[in-house]
Amino acid sequence: MKWLTAVLPHQVTPAPGFWQKQLDLNAESILTLNVEHCERTGRFRNFAVCAGLVDGQHEGRRYNDSDVYKVLEGAAYVLADYPDHPCAQRVSEVIDWIAAAQQSDGYLNTYFTLAEPEKRWKDIRNGHELYCIGHLIEAALAWSERHGDDRLLQVSLKAIDHIQETFGSRDDQMPHPPGHQELELALIKLWQRTQNEAHLNMARFFLEGRGELTHRESYGAYCQDHVPVREQATPTGHAVRLMYQCCGQADLARALRDEEQLQCLLTLWDEMTGKHMYITGGIGSSALNEGFTEPYDLPNEIAYAETCAGIGVILWGQRMFLATGNATYHHVIERALYNAVLCGVSMDGSRFFYDNPLASDGSKHRVDWFDCSCCPSNLVRFLPQVQGLIYAVSDDDTLYVNQFVSSTTTCQVAGRDLTIEQRTSMPWAGRIELILGTSGPSIPFTLNLRQPDWCSARPQITVNDTPMSVEAGPDGYITVMREWSDGDRVLVDFPMEARFVEAPAAVRANRGRAAVERGPIVYCLEQVDLRGFDAVGCSDLHVDASARPQECRHEGLTTWFPEVGSRGPAPMALEIQVSGTFTERFRQPRPVAVVPYFMWDNRTQGGMAVWLRTGP
Amino acid sequence: MKWLTAVLPHQVTPAPGFWQKQLDLNAESILTLNVEHCERTGRFRNFAVCAGLVDGQHEGRRYNDSDVYKVLEGAAYVLADYPDHPCAQRVSEVIDWIAAAQQSDGYLNTYFTLAEPEKRWKDIRNGHELYCIGHLIEAALAWSERHGDDRLLQVSLKAIDHIQETFGSRDDQMPHPPGHQELELALIKLWQRTQNEAHLNMARFFLEGRGELTHRESYGAYCQDHVPVREQATPTGHAVRLMYQCCGQADLARALRDEEQLQCLLTLWDEMTGKHMYITGGIGSSALNEGFTEPYDLPNEIAYAETCAGIGVILWGQRMFLATGNATYHHVIERALYNAVLCGVSMDGSRFFYDNPLASDGSKHRVDWFDCSCCPSNLVRFLPQVQGLIYAVSDDDTLYVNQFVSSTTTCQVAGRDLTIEQRTSMPWAGRIELILGTSGPSIPFTLNLRQPDWCSARPQITVNDTPMSVEAGPDGYITVMREWSDGDRVLVDFPMEARFVEAPAAVRANRGRAAVERGPIVYCLEQVDLRGFDAVGCSDLHVDASARPQECRHEGLTTWFPEVGSRGPAPMALEIQVSGTFTERFRQPRPVAVVPYFMWDNRTQGGMAVWLRTGP
Repeated sequence: MKWLTAVLPHQVTPAPGFWQKQLDLNAESILTLNVEHCERTGRFRNFAVCAGLVDGQHEGRRYNDSDVYKVLEGAAYVLADYPDHPCAQRVSEVIDWIAAAQQSDGYLNTYFTLAEPEKRWKDIRNGHELYCIGHLIEAALAWSERHGDDRLLQVSLKAIDHIQETFGSRDDQMPHPPGHQELELALIKLWQRTQNEAHLNMARFFLEGRGELTHRESYGAYCQDHVPVREQATPTGHAVRLMYQCCGQADLARALRDEEQLQCLLTLWDEMTGKHMYITGGIGSSALNEGFTEPYDLPNEIAYAETCAGIGVILWGQRMFLATGNATYHHVIERALYNAVLCGVSMDGSRFFYDNPLASDGSKHRVDWFDCSCCPSNLVRFLPQVQGLIYAVSDDDTLYVNQFVSSTTTCQVAGRDLTIEQRTSMPWAGRIELILGTSGPSIPFTLNLRQPDWCSARPQITVNDTPMSVEAGPDGYITVMREWSDGDRVLVDFPMEARFVEAPAAVRANRGRAAVERGPIVYCLEQVDLRGFDAVGCSDLHVDASARPQECRHEGLTTWFPEVGSRGPAPMALEIQVSGTFTERFRQPRPVAVVPYFMWDNRTQGGMAVWLRTGP
Repeated sequence: MKWLTAVLPHQVTPAPGFWQKQLDLNAESILTLNVEHCERTGRFRNFAVCAGLVDGQHEGRRYNDSDVYKVLEGAAYVLADYPDHPCAQRVSEVIDWIAAAQQSDGYLNTYFTLAEPEKRWKDIRNGHELYCIGHLIEAALAWSERHGDDRLLQVSLKAIDHIQETFGSRDDQMPHPPGHQELELALIKLWQRTQNEAHLNMARFFLEGRGELTHRESYGAYCQDHVPVREQATPTGHAVRLMYQCCGQADLARALRDEEQLQCLLTLWDEMTGKHMYITGGIGSSALNEGFTEPYDLPNEIAYAETCAGIGVILWGQRMFLATGNATYHHVIERALYNAVLCGVSMDGSRFFYDNPLASDGSKHRVDWFDCSCCPSNLVRFLPQVQGLIYAVSDDDTLYVNQFVSSTTTCQVAGRDLTIEQRTSMPWAGRIELILGTSGPSIPFTLNLRQPDWCSARPQITVNDTPMSVEAGPDGYITVMREWSDGDRVLVDFPMEARFVEAPAAVRANRGRAAVERGPIVYCLEQVDLRGFDAVGCSDLHVDASARPQECRHEGLTTWFPEVGSRGPAPMALEIQVSGTFTERFRQPRPVAVVPYFMWDNRTQGGMAVWLRTGP
């Protein structure tokens, strides 16, 4: 095991390019709209009512506090970079309400306090009380670390004291783990900050109590409560719950240097990514349990692939990478990031998908908000953490470059401060430039550059314009060891070719079908691009998968990523050849454009398909 | 393979005893109430509206026609035995409405015709149009066979002609199998009547089209549509759907004498009964998909175990028995019958469970009816078929006695008419008496008497009062070969001892717990029997599993099964020893009564538990 250290999001400043645009969108639209929706739906006000500051009743669902905490966590990140953000004052006021809403014994949940006080701590499986406190802690740590504002941290510590009194193995305590995992990983984050062993032990108690049923009723496999976490070798149940559980478990394995526990997670990860993951990196194919079903059961039109689950894949994957130093986790992270997650929000940052199907008859569209609005609030807090996925450092003086994001970074390598300026055209072109700054004598360290799994050709690499002859090792990294001097410049070009791919034969839903990929981007065919095909639908066409997709300009896409100025290149559309047997005049192949999957449903509403038929 | 022939329900006349009471209850209460609820909720009226006989709109869910067909099927059986039933005229009128509601092209579905005509045959996964026609066919065959009334049969044949035109492998046809299985088994039943190969082929087309996804979107594993039926080695998805699929598959295997297909079913049955079945014979542990999850994920309080799924187990199990002649299937049938299925209706036949948990905090109760009311209507048609589970005959002149029901039967054995009078006190005592009538010379045949799996002691058997020394063979049957003469009398007594049982260790939810069984009956502890224990709940007590449960009288139970007269013995309650650590005065074991699980929630409302803690 490697136990690497990530370069944290706040150490990285985005530079103009694809991701800066996403972060601007998050600040300017997604956060602002989430705040407005929390306002409009009573999510904020519930705290004021609970605090006795205003009259009223609880509004909404029992887990709505968690959206507020997630929005506050996102706000902590965003406001650090956009201090004049219009939401700043409102958000600070809500923090005061939260503190005021906490009960004198430390209990904090607006729903149960206001609506069903007699059911407090009575239905741990469904109550979401512990889940909400997990998100409270994450928000608290963000405010403390980014702003030195410890108001939420004080609330959290008081809430945790109360939970430690309520849950445990004593006769007068409850043995129940949270119904929805989240508090486990939050407690370990808290322990990293407080170094209070009780916080780590509480996380361990909850993680190890799952599937231990001697003294309580089972929550069932939906909550991963059928067997202890270490015995869970196949992904089952609710997908987000499992992702958060695995994050907590990986954190615990790291805290305890418990390689056996990590080994269980390696098996589970391989099983999940090998048999239960969509080409988009999405997981959890079934709407009914918002989760997993049988291996290779990956239906397209009814694919659930919740946005939150895509985020969960990345959160877990990063922990697996940090434990192992293996690039395979970042291959999956990249796939989930550009497809499963980005698809969750419209190009103007105003509308959201909860589930992300891979085919549609035209009836599926993003909406403003949801009654259960976990996905929009998860995006708010996740997107500003993306730059934490770029770099990591190991004890043996190796710098890992995992994701390609135009940015400037200062981090510690080999005991020295290193600045890294990264310039890239990703995801539209595979060129990446790294300029290193040592501000002093040279630094000997190893540079490990992830070669994406979509790049099968040998990349071109130069160091200070001198071509290097290197190739990726079995761990997926191109390794350059040298003494790095101030101003050293690494240039790498990963050839990015559009290609047709097939699913494993075991995925019945995709037999006789192919999908188009280019770089990390999965493409789709949208009905709106089938003008001239009369009423023909995406699923009626046959694609000629022997003809390589050709890059093409597409006016519809450049609206969002204009090529002009500092935004980098415009998004790439591809042209493929399709035909059909339905009428005589479509028997000859003709060209049609496919567009990045994450951009679908941003123009005229209509059908969509990722997997296209290759024959009649 | 044996390919036995069942002695059909109409060949069996129940005699006073446990099951005659159930059948009376079905006729006098369950059928009558189902008819009233179909009336009240517009289920009947939808057909009249659809036929243009009355004005109005469609009421209720898209699959409500199926309840009407199931009630009509049940009515066909009931009215054959109770010709003066008060529902007779109403039911006959509804049949006319159904015929009048059918469209000129043969299409028949009141919901889509009235409410969403533009969606007819557009959403085969969720539409339930094919499912409803399956139940129509079963009702039609019941009316034709029991009453010589072919009105529904004519409707069915016209509907099937239309479906055969609409679905198939031609370019202008739809390749879709039904979203909810049922039509498959109904088509094979229809073929058995019509001998029209097209009906068999249509069933085969639908069964073999499942999991074949080249030309359509997958319905997902929920609908068992992730792989072809022959590749389904573990139970997955919606439980009732899978049971009906397996019935159709077993019927097809029999029709085609396809032993390979049957082999797949043997594997699946063993997997299901070994790893996915409750002690009650219930299946489908999760409410979310009304179906299967992970092996050994059998939570008690949130157990779904739908009544319809219990019925499905029996329908499939009987087919497996008829294919193999193995008693193991009837062991499971007996378990499901007396526990999972009978629990679905209250002792007065007026209230129903949809899901059948094995523990309750007191909040779970039977109700009058459901919006989705498949379970009550399934009971109406299933209960009058129970006597079809008693006997079967094989080509090698063997008579199988599988279930123990007081009754009189005439069937063909060795080419001769045989009458069998069965008298039994089951399920309260293991004594069974068979009196054979040959009305002429003796008949040489083999009598195969199932020795229930709950009877581990050697049973006493006499033939004409002469003790026989026989024991059950590996197929689970006690075999007596002889020339049987008119009036021969077989008496067998299966010792019935109350016992504690433990679940397999892999079932985490039941570790450190035991359940009580006696004969085929699973027992439970009800809160109402804990008078004198103050506010102690069923799950707070510890049972002494080393003390054998003692049979005891229980006034609460004899209300429903009075011992007097012709009804047979009263139901048996058992006394067990419980203690608790919560207060000093409960540390000494004290006796408490447990009652048959299927009788729970018929007295004062309160908690219940099947699996009781054996230690603190």
